[in-house]
Amino acid sequence: MVKVKVGVNGYGVIGKRVADAVSLQRDMELVGISDVASDYRVQVAVKRGYPIYASMEEAAPEMRKAGIKIAGTLDDLLKKVDVIVDATPKGIGAKNKALYEGAGVKATFQGGEKHELVQASFVAQCNYKRALGKDFVRIVSCNTTGLCRVLGAVKQAHGIKRARAVLFRRATDPWESHKSGIINTAVPETHVPSHQGPDAQTVIPDLNIVTLAAKGPYNLSHLHFAMVELPKRVKAEAVIKTLRRTPRILLIRAADGLLGLNSVIELMRDLGRPRADMWEVALWEDIASIEGDELYLVYQVHNEAIVIPENIDAIRAMTELERDPMRSIRKTDEALGIAR
Amino acid sequence: MVKVKVGVNGYGVIGKRVADAVSLQRDMELVGISDVASDYRVQVAVKRGYPIYASMEEAAPEMRKAGIKIAGTLDDLLKKVDVIVDATPKGIGAKNKALYEGAGVKATFQGGEKHELVQASFVAQCNYKRALGKDFVRIVSCNTTGLCRVLGAVKQAHGIKRARAVLFRRATDPWESHKSGIINTAVPETHVPSHQGPDAQTVIPDLNIVTLAAKGPYNLSHLHFAMVELPKRVKAEAVIKTLRRTPRILLIRAADGLLGLNSVIELMRDLGRPRADMWEVALWEDIASIEGDELYLVYQVHNEAIVIPENIDAIRAMTELERDPMRSIRKTDEALGIAR
Repeated sequence: MVKVKVGVNGYGVIGKRVADAVSLQRDMELVGISDVASDYRVQVAVKRGYPIYASMEEAAPEMRKAGIKIAGTLDDLLKKVDVIVDATPKGIGAKNKALYEGAGVKATFQGGEKHELVQASFVAQCNYKRALGKDFVRIVSCNTTGLCRVLGAVKQAHGIKRARAVLFRRATDPWESHKSGIINTAVPETHVPSHQGPDAQTVIPDLNIVTLAAKGPYNLSHLHFAMVELPKRVKAEAVIKTLRRTPRILLIRAADGLLGLNSVIELMRDLGRPRADMWEVALWEDIASIEGDELYLVYQVHNEAIVIPENIDAIRAMTELERDPMRSIRKTDEALGIAR
Repeated sequence: MVKVKVGVNGYGVIGKRVADAVSLQRDMELVGISDVASDYRVQVAVKRGYPIYASMEEAAPEMRKAGIKIAGTLDDLLKKVDVIVDATPKGIGAKNKALYEGAGVKATFQGGEKHELVQASFVAQCNYKRALGKDFVRIVSCNTTGLCRVLGAVKQAHGIKRARAVLFRRATDPWESHKSGIINTAVPETHVPSHQGPDAQTVIPDLNIVTLAAKGPYNLSHLHFAMVELPKRVKAEAVIKTLRRTPRILLIRAADGLLGLNSVIELMRDLGRPRADMWEVALWEDIASIEGDELYLVYQVHNEAIVIPENIDAIRAMTELERDPMRSIRKTDEALGIAR
């Protein structure tokens, strides 16, 4: 089998997960990861047997001092791969693009980068085909991915007249909760619409949507409230049926004791998910309801994990390893262990 | 000047604040407070010189043992007052009603009680006159009061086609944060609409509204996101102007560093407010915006304090001490120190 050679630049929250996910795909080979850090995170990459590259030459001595065997620099890694997953901090990806272009390597960027940087902003189940053969694709952010999966499915099956969503975001990620975060408060975004609404339109251009957002003092996930005006009346059961057959949406029930963000993540821990990751959107089936022509949905977006399968599918689309969206999604999900 | 004689039954979060507020009104006399506890809270009431009554005869010995001088039982208090403010825990008010009725005493109840218990559910600026001369009036809950103040004002000035609001509630109050509360999670209400929407309609019957809610791990205030479809286009400035002249709405700006629930409460501390109370709704002037015919408002509701002025105004309306809503509101606000 032809395997696409993949590198990951930036081994943080997204990069480390993408690296693991790539190495689980039968049609991909993880050539190596690249970073500038030498702390416990990169040390685990060493333990996993991933070849380590230095994203900047200046970082190499420090990394070697920490006992990390360096296989080369990012330039060396780029010579060996077909696709690089750029999971560097916001803004760095834009600077890296010229590097990738020079090396003739395709790249996925993450949601921190701008839509204008790339040829397509991507959510697999919404616009896989737009990324076919492209060189530069942006995986939209966690919140935008959640919006696109849920509202994209509703729109396709039932239409959407207008969608409003309020996002209650986690303040920070677990790995940096010791140094950043907020306690005992909630902080609203100072701009309406928050950026996620317009960002969703980079994936679904004719989605009529507005988003408002705030962050709260927790680090487990985001919580979304979507209020969706439908063009005609349907039953809540019909929408649930639509969502049930949509990939990467997990229908959950408060009646099963899944009452908060914490319960859902605890379920992921109990299921043996790596890092307690939830790649799906978890949507409360028993909260979902319709009043008149308006649909109400409440769902949870695990910000650390939701974009991981999207990166994998983007690689398949860009390299045309697979031209059919649903076949790629199925391959990715089977390799990760996402049950329908 | 004729003074209305007022008693407060239940000296908790609301009761202790109402007692202080009553004693600041020139046209009211606080005859006493009634409770069953003998802890620090009631000891402070003693220190303030409030006569203490035992809500249940069985509680009296324990209270006396704690050094609290008991002026009598609740029955004794009821003989001396024109109005009792029932601020007992949810559901107890309903049981107390017969007691008040038997004593020929008017009563305000709090938002935990049902609309059906009373002759009017009350928010001063919305329906003061409906409470005129009534015997039993319910002060709606903190969230409902916030919704009614803000949306009531918008509706009166500009009309409302449909309002949608998402409420991020505080999980618990400061005084009981040691024993109840949640950490590192958010918990959505499992029913749409959440009760606050229908509750607002007990005050503004023709308000077309739906509310969704969740609670977060903080205790300072609630945070509301309101999305309001207007019957015709207006400028955001016109709405701000409306809200600026509405009583008990405080326009704040993120640009002034008021970025989260905590900053606004810190402002109340700096202003020397008793218990850092915010009786007003704080509404972000620089977040408020209009897109097309839709208005977006973000505001903060201090759950411990917002209903205090409403209890005072309800007493004036029920006793007909004052028949004009704005005159009562002005008297209450001046006594409390609410600047316009």
